[in-house]
Amino acid sequence: MSTPNVWNGAGRRIHMNEVGTRDGLQMEQAFVPTEDKIALVNALSEAGLSKIEVTAFVSPKAIPALRDGEIVMREIVRRPGTVYTALVPNVRGAERAIDARTDELNLVMSVSETHNLCNLRMQRSQSFEALRQVIATAQQAATPVNVSLSCCFGCPMEGDVAEAEVLDWVQRFADLGVQGITLCDTTGMAYPSQVHSMVLAFRARWPQLGLTLHFHNTRGMALANVLASIAAGADRFDASIGGLGGCPYAPGASGNACTEEIVHALQLMGYDTGTDLARIVAAARSLPALIGHETPSQIVKAGTRWDLHQPPADFAEIKERAQARA
Amino acid sequence: MSTPNVWNGAGRRIHMNEVGTRDGLQMEQAFVPTEDKIALVNALSEAGLSKIEVTAFVSPKAIPALRDGEIVMREIVRRPGTVYTALVPNVRGAERAIDARTDELNLVMSVSETHNLCNLRMQRSQSFEALRQVIATAQQAATPVNVSLSCCFGCPMEGDVAEAEVLDWVQRFADLGVQGITLCDTTGMAYPSQVHSMVLAFRARWPQLGLTLHFHNTRGMALANVLASIAAGADRFDASIGGLGGCPYAPGASGNACTEEIVHALQLMGYDTGTDLARIVAAARSLPALIGHETPSQIVKAGTRWDLHQPPADFAEIKERAQARA
Repeated sequence: MSTPNVWNGAGRRIHMNEVGTRDGLQMEQAFVPTEDKIALVNALSEAGLSKIEVTAFVSPKAIPALRDGEIVMREIVRRPGTVYTALVPNVRGAERAIDARTDELNLVMSVSETHNLCNLRMQRSQSFEALRQVIATAQQAATPVNVSLSCCFGCPMEGDVAEAEVLDWVQRFADLGVQGITLCDTTGMAYPSQVHSMVLAFRARWPQLGLTLHFHNTRGMALANVLASIAAGADRFDASIGGLGGCPYAPGASGNACTEEIVHALQLMGYDTGTDLARIVAAARSLPALIGHETPSQIVKAGTRWDLHQPPADFAEIKERAQARA
Repeated sequence: MSTPNVWNGAGRRIHMNEVGTRDGLQMEQAFVPTEDKIALVNALSEAGLSKIEVTAFVSPKAIPALRDGEIVMREIVRRPGTVYTALVPNVRGAERAIDARTDELNLVMSVSETHNLCNLRMQRSQSFEALRQVIATAQQAATPVNVSLSCCFGCPMEGDVAEAEVLDWVQRFADLGVQGITLCDTTGMAYPSQVHSMVLAFRARWPQLGLTLHFHNTRGMALANVLASIAAGADRFDASIGGLGGCPYAPGASGNACTEEIVHALQLMGYDTGTDLARIVAAARSLPALIGHETPSQIVKAGTRWDLHQPPADFAEIKERAQARA
């Protein structure tokens, strides 16, 4: 099950799912104009991302930042090879998403009772029942479903969530015939040994079920968690351009794993992400003009490893003076 | 050579060298008062760090921030089990450091000709000759020597530096009988596969020579590089509290690997760093008052994984309302 040498990518394919346009923008104060959202999704499509979470089909009152979900989903240019997904909380959202030709529905609940109550105002069992109806709706329309499980690596209020409990929730959704599961590290509590164990267990139990990992870089562990996942057999990751999508519990801390940081590292290691890093970085550099503030992206700040610097203007003199002393 | 499972620390010992008091403070505009420096080193000693780079014995004109090196080195409380090291550029500095009872001298040169000229105003061959004299001075006093080689994983001006060339410089210093070598990623260009290969090669060629890795988090890869190093047999790392010590080529980007971020992750993974994370975090939290600005530390911003949050004030009502619908 374990990959022989995670440190050498050797051309292996890793799939990157962009979540910035949904998970990132939904938290922003500024409303990004619809045409800018469409242009951003189109730029990300051209960058070769495997999947893009375009928007959410939720109440415009709940998330006003994404109130234009229908128009965005209808008007983006669909690139063959990219799956266009959207967050859907209920049957009404699913119907809207399917009407707008969404390729896949992404459903969310938390494996932590406290977090689910705080975030979705429902007991986990209530969320499960609601999502069961959404899944039935999707299945009638032959639209694939992915379920994102929050707090799989810890709850900011409850603390640890047992691996067995997480896998029980996976089992329930697997039994309903969903196409994929995303194990989400909602607030940056995942650590590499925990991730390695969880992914090994998931892969052993459901070798055919789609598996995505969703990490936050809140405590600096996102890339290490990606590598631990790959070492355990995972090949699909959520990430957000610019690292968009902060953590409500830690103002100023990094949020989602940053797409360009993860792609940059994986590309250097010889993995094939199927993406054009320069286009991703260009998209990330376009964000401050849209959202009105800098992003946490280290690649935007520092450039890529290939962006070399000129020696200082007086380098010829420095060299000559050293030469003279030789 | 390779560790069977890097993801499971299983109590293995990893040594952390604190460099913030030298590599970090030397870049700060503010002069940190001598008594505050001494208190900071003492706090780091009590936190159980294996080695602390206390200061530099350089010209006060070159690095005014560390002009109080002698007093700091003489007045700190020496904890048994912590090695107190200092940066030394030349024989005069070595004599001052030895007089001040420095446990180990840390010497620096770059494996990139361009970087060495820019940073030290010498050709690499000139630096080597100068350091050879420093090493002779240290050996006469029976003081151990570590050599930190800059740009081992790439030069911001030249780009890649061949692994063989890096190892040639290691060989030259090994031939002079130094006790340790630090392979430095001076500007955050190291990536995990490169690191894994370099450490494997080093360990195979010099199984008895001390090896330290020094990473920067400029492009978000510091922790991943630490884990790649451990997987290849390394067990000693430089890091800086608060992530102090920025990158001159990338204003706003992260600098040195952050001590509390690395220790936090390694501790979660079951490694034994011999340190008290709470004391390290307390020291990091004391920095803004000393240097006049925030640090990039994610742990300072977000807290540790064990720092849980209270549910919202209306949680009882949320729960009740959900219960009523069940």
